[in-house]
Amino acid sequence: LNLGPGTPPVKTAPLLALTSDFGLDDPYVGILKAVISSLAPEVRLVDLTHGIPPQDVLAGRLALEAARPYFPPGTVHLAVVDPGVGSERRALVVDAGRDLWVAPDNGLLSFLPEAEIRQVRALENPAFFLQPVSRTFHGRDVFAPAAARLASGTPPEAFGPAVEGFRRLELPAAAVSAQGVRGEVLTFDRFGNAITSIRERDLPEGEWETLVGGRRVSWAATYACVAPGEPLWLVGSSGRVEVGVRLASARELLRIGRGDEVLLRRPSGEGS
Amino acid sequence: LNLGPGTPPVKTAPLLALTSDFGLDDPYVGILKAVISSLAPEVRLVDLTHGIPPQDVLAGRLALEAARPYFPPGTVHLAVVDPGVGSERRALVVDAGRDLWVAPDNGLLSFLPEAEIRQVRALENPAFFLQPVSRTFHGRDVFAPAAARLASGTPPEAFGPAVEGFRRLELPAAAVSAQGVRGEVLTFDRFGNAITSIRERDLPEGEWETLVGGRRVSWAATYACVAPGEPLWLVGSSGRVEVGVRLASARELLRIGRGDEVLLRRPSGEGS
Amino acid sequence: LNLGPGTPPVKTAPLLALTSDFGLDDPYVGILKAVISSLAPEVRLVDLTHGIPPQDVLAGRLALEAARPYFPPGTVHLAVVDPGVGSERRALVVDAGRDLWVAPDNGLLSFLPEAEIRQVRALENPAFFLQPVSRTFHGRDVFAPAAARLASGTPPEAFGPAVEGFRRLELPAAAVSAQGVRGEVLTFDRFGNAITSIRERDLPEGEWETLVGGRRVSWAATYACVAPGEPLWLVGSSGRVEVGVRLASARELLRIGRGDEVLLRRPSGEGS
Repeated sequence: LNLGPGTPPVKTAPLLALTSDFGLDDPYVGILKAVISSLAPEVRLVDLTHGIPPQDVLAGRLALEAARPYFPPGTVHLAVVDPGVGSERRALVVDAGRDLWVAPDNGLLSFLPEAEIRQVRALENPAFFLQPVSRTFHGRDVFAPAAARLASGTPPEAFGPAVEGFRRLELPAAAVSAQGVRGEVLTFDRFGNAITSIRERDLPEGEWETLVGGRRVSWAATYACVAPGEPLWLVGSSGRVEVGVRLASARELLRIGRGDEVLLRRPSGEGS
Repeated sequence: LNLGPGTPPVKTAPLLALTSDFGLDDPYVGILKAVISSLAPEVRLVDLTHGIPPQDVLAGRLALEAARPYFPPGTVHLAVVDPGVGSERRALVVDAGRDLWVAPDNGLLSFLPEAEIRQVRALENPAFFLQPVSRTFHGRDVFAPAAARLASGTPPEAFGPAVEGFRRLELPAAAVSAQGVRGEVLTFDRFGNAITSIRERDLPEGEWETLVGGRRVSWAATYACVAPGEPLWLVGSSGRVEVGVRLASARELLRIGRGDEVLLRRPSGEGS
Repeated sequence: LNLGPGTPPVKTAPLLALTSDFGLDDPYVGILKAVISSLAPEVRLVDLTHGIPPQDVLAGRLALEAARPYFPPGTVHLAVVDPGVGSERRALVVDAGRDLWVAPDNGLLSFLPEAEIRQVRALENPAFFLQPVSRTFHGRDVFAPAAARLASGTPPEAFGPAVEGFRRLELPAAAVSAQGVRGEVLTFDRFGNAITSIRERDLPEGEWETLVGGRRVSWAATYACVAPGEPLWLVGSSGRVEVGVRLASARELLRIGRGDEVLLRRPSGEGS
């Protein structure tokens, strides 16, 4: 990532990025921010998103993966998509070199490359919890206080014992063969564009036809290249194959859903 | 509330927390922030939520009550859920000791304990209004400028005459008797969990069975204790009895709505 | 706009206001903020709204127009509603005297008065882009970096060649005649109030009756003047005629939509 000329050295307050499935209608996110502002008033808060579908760890992981490279070095990420709150799942503090992470150990951080991990700590030191710890809102009582402390300089070691790593959730991978590439729809964005399991690096050379949920869809360089209402596929801004419809929702118009097949194959005889 | 070791003294800019029913799709919230940033650029803005259902004073009050303890002392709260805008309802500035409040006098602040109130002022001094004052957007023209000034140090006395107190909205209280506890559903959160009028302190000792909208629901310590799709009740993060369904919406699955009865009663003969 | 007594001189960090149709569910807005925080960590970010309906340039323009007067002088606005991303539409940097704008050249900035424009630059200098520039997310790769640099003091001249002005999108104007005023519904807000093309200055003296989608609606000074469930029209907070229903949605109750006629005409003989 090249930020261009004259990137200033970051001398300002540390950045704390928040990601969750709490939505913005309930007071939960505001309460997280209240806790952090109480403990670390100098920290700058930035929301990545709180609109992860409820308890959808996969969608949370994709959002974090897409956004990570754009945050400044030293960012502390608080990420709470936590269907297992109250169970035995661990809470983690992860030092990934360029950034620090506080999250439940449920696969949300699967995209962090093994080689970048400097240490993983189990967030177990009760001195850093809000007391009493509720059984249902660890975001408030466990994760937010730890993220605030991390951002204001407490070292990861303080939060609990070192652990061996964390749960990794494998994404459905694209199957690449001489016959083509077979992937699937992972999630949708607000515009109804489908984000797929096929990455730019999976794309083969040569001529291919593309089928999405059994329907042929043409490649275009960008949405503006096709007529309104026309479907297309392209490599989206996060480096994944996206299927969209210009000025409309591919989800609705193509009637596709999560898990639907996306297939690139050798064109059949007729055309070529 | 114990914030843990080494809580730093707040030496930073004052915190101004915003709560409203404006939603985030219209420019209203952004306009509030523009006004505040114009008048008090040093203030740090934090959203509690703007997703209070339109004109739902009860839901606004519950959100504020749940969040209040987590904001740092000295926080200025701007709270606008104002179905009476343009009528004779008062605008208020309230000094509640640990925090300051700017809100319409319609019950939104009912949760502030009488004993903590230091002074209540009618927000009537036109010197603090944006001129001309519109008839429909007092959030922008009356409340936001006052909150900005309060946060930047103008004392409550400046805003208008002392008044005797403010409108208090009684919540439907849980009825506690030897036969059991009878309460009701007050509101729902994004996950479809029902927040009820029964508080932790209302809960009787001993064995009880719980009926929600006529249906038996078991207690569990936390969501993770029951199987996906199972209903449960527990004491939620704000100290109220909550009724939920693991990884699903109680509102939808149990077909319950606001005002529906929640009953704890002595178990009937068969089981005990 | 009179901000009242003792308005402090703005000595704090520059304000950067964000407006888009990205919604808050996807990570796109968070990524914009990450980019800006990386390049200009001292900048204060304020969201106007990200809830502009997808690709609705008209709604974006109305939101920006309504909010502009309330932001402090010197505000940098980043506005991205960009159905033409990837096409030949220009990206612009506009110096409008009291504020600076970064936006696509598609009519979004039509409300900026010609007389206030000091210079318009085509945003073409690749030194300010994130490299590689994606084909689908110019918000991240082109607009956000430019807005960050502008806010941290890079002059507009640096971003590209001067251009002659920008695309202006004419709003449907109200037709004013001796017989009355004919306008239309432009958009709706969250409360279901209809914002129309009739401005306060278009309103004639004297007695008129008002028809909205063919139905008679009475004027009221403010929502609180009518009974719950009653329709009314008034001059809303942005200076436009608004049609609403007290404590309900005019959109739903009056079954009106964008483009529906709003008519003020001489009362028919019977009543006067």
